[in-house]
Amino acid sequence: MSHNEKRHSDAERAQVRRQQVLDAAAICFKRSGFHGASMSEISKAAGMSAGHIYNYFDSKDAIIAAFVEQNVERVTAILRDLEQRADPLMGLVDDTENSVTDHVESDRIALRLEIWAEASRNPAIAAVVRDADLRSRTHFRAVLKNARELRQLDASDATVDGLMEAVIALFHGLHVRAIHNPDAARPAIVASVRNALRAMLFS
Amino acid sequence: MSHNEKRHSDAERAQVRRQQVLDAAAICFKRSGFHGASMSEISKAAGMSAGHIYNYFDSKDAIIAAFVEQNVERVTAILRDLEQRADPLMGLVDDTENSVTDHVESDRIALRLEIWAEASRNPAIAAVVRDADLRSRTHFRAVLKNARELRQLDASDATVDGLMEAVIALFHGLHVRAIHNPDAARPAIVASVRNALRAMLFS
Repeated sequence: MSHNEKRHSDAERAQVRRQQVLDAAAICFKRSGFHGASMSEISKAAGMSAGHIYNYFDSKDAIIAAFVEQNVERVTAILRDLEQRADPLMGLVDDTENSVTDHVESDRIALRLEIWAEASRNPAIAAVVRDADLRSRTHFRAVLKNARELRQLDASDATVDGLMEAVIALFHGLHVRAIHNPDAARPAIVASVRNALRAMLFS
Repeated sequence: MSHNEKRHSDAERAQVRRQQVLDAAAICFKRSGFHGASMSEISKAAGMSAGHIYNYFDSKDAIIAAFVEQNVERVTAILRDLEQRADPLMGLVDDTENSVTDHVESDRIALRLEIWAEASRNPAIAAVVRDADLRSRTHFRAVLKNARELRQLDASDATVDGLMEAVIALFHGLHVRAIHNPDAARPAIVASVRNALRAMLFS
């Protein structure tokens, strides 16, 4: 094995270990809540010694930050796909069924609700969540501005920012609805969300 | 003091004490989370002996149930007001500014997020939250069906239920947005939410 190959495989192994910790932490947070889960419980669930986990994350806050970062990457991928389209606004409307399904069926719901609850009382987590949200909004704003200019719609920052908040609220709210009414029939929700998106994006 | 007056004042006193416990619990849950806050911490914050609190609530779950019930009462009041209007659909659209403000400025956000997070991992709390949501939706469905029949719009259960989920998602999501972007400018959000509501309610 060459020096480069070894370095590559070390980095890969570290990446696998990090993900192992994140998977274990997701289970522990879901079971005991952010406050109830300890670093030693998480390391145990990850099959590591209590000390070993600190090679990857130095606190529960760092684990939360990693989850939040994974969500930024997920949003970035969606926005990159969208900005490749000839008409990103129509793309968002056309994707309604997939995006509704993704939000009500997501296996990230419990974890996101836990992070939001923690952000509402813990300033360090609030800062992490807000910074990530700002970066995703900056990207989303650029996509929306270009797409609206293309269609000669009002693309001012104020209008686009309000639009963006309302669109994101709708999707965040679908996570919350999945907790309240998990058996709600999907097709009529999709139809209403599509009407809402079309009205907001094209006004 | 007559017997009746005394009974009345006992009931009032109990009501005041219950509210005292709820106010203290809201502070403790916000500080330590549902799991972190103990009944003894809550009784202390309410200025009661540890045993006294059990006269009003026999568990933290019962306290959560009382918060959820207060929200049902809040929703009931809004729906009663709405069903008095000549055109409840237009009433909802006209009220957008107030309802957006109420959801992004609410002092109940941290508590609601905590309850939702708890509902996503605790089946007892999930049952409480779902039962309350079902009752509010039953009322909201009746209001929407009547209002849509009045305007000769599709008032079938399937359509109205999908519409209802999307409308509630939008408002629940505004609570979540307040955590992520507390300084978002309100007027453009109101304009977008109004567009969304109009499109959903009148389709």
